[in-house]
Amino acid sequence: MSQVTNIPYEALSVGQQAAFEKTVEERDVQLFAAVSGDNNPVHLDAAFAAETLFKERIAHGMFTGALISAAIACRLPGPGTIYLGQQLKFTRPVKLGDTLTVKLEVLEKLPKNRVRIATRVFNQDGKQVVDGEAEVLAPSTEQTVTMPPMPQVTVN
Amino acid sequence: MSQVTNIPYEALSVGQQAAFEKTVEERDVQLFAAVSGDNNPVHLDAAFAAETLFKERIAHGMFTGALISAAIACRLPGPGTIYLGQQLKFTRPVKLGDTLTVKLEVLEKLPKNRVRIATRVFNQDGKQVVDGEAEVLAPSTEQTVTMPPMPQVTVN
Repeated sequence: MSQVTNIPYEALSVGQQAAFEKTVEERDVQLFAAVSGDNNPVHLDAAFAAETLFKERIAHGMFTGALISAAIACRLPGPGTIYLGQQLKFTRPVKLGDTLTVKLEVLEKLPKNRVRIATRVFNQDGKQVVDGEAEVLAPSTEQTVTMPPMPQVTVN
Repeated sequence: MSQVTNIPYEALSVGQQAAFEKTVEERDVQLFAAVSGDNNPVHLDAAFAAETLFKERIAHGMFTGALISAAIACRLPGPGTIYLGQQLKFTRPVKLGDTLTVKLEVLEKLPKNRVRIATRVFNQDGKQVVDGEAEVLAPSTEQTVTMPPMPQVTVN
């Protein structure tokens, strides 16, 4: 089990950044369909998707939203953060095999521990696939948290 | 395999609604942790969560976002919809066992097939847990789509 230390409100500064990469795999699309209930063929059926304007299967837009929320909850500010809001603009499709880079940047510190964070996601060609921003309640104290093991999930 | 018929732009009217219910289960929280990568103990560790201000485990905020996105993609307007954007305000925590009602309502028809849709989610006490709205590109033609089988997923 890994340990993660958050960044409390006082230690956050405007311009502070965090980033991580994630390659979108078949498993991710299957899992997101199962957890969201969205089994549209544009995500799951290659022959159907080939006839759409996307020409091939695409990931669910909100899968990228889920990656953003995890980056906020695990990295910046990290554990203890309370999610108040999220704006998302889906600017380009995400295809299977794309490598996404989620970039967070502190935009503004507001009163009462509230913080605005830019949430931008780029693909392997440097093209932006999601733009947006989060509003969070940052943790008031530094805390090191033991992260439970990631649930083991099998797609049959 | 089920079939779903979308509601094309021309057939959408302001005030048109769709709703569905979903009870948040242990499995949902485990799956969302796995697909997002957010394994924070407030979601997965009951003893840890008992010491937080929530007093018990809560679902990931963006899980409710995933339900909203599925409602748009599968119901209103349904298959063929292109997701342009989503605003979310997380107004109350969602706990395991809560029964959520996702309510969609067409707010405005914009030029070039764009539509604004209110995306509101309530718990079993009628209290709102998420407020927000989506912007989508509605399908230009009516289409009946064969939905692939939902991926079968096992949490170990």
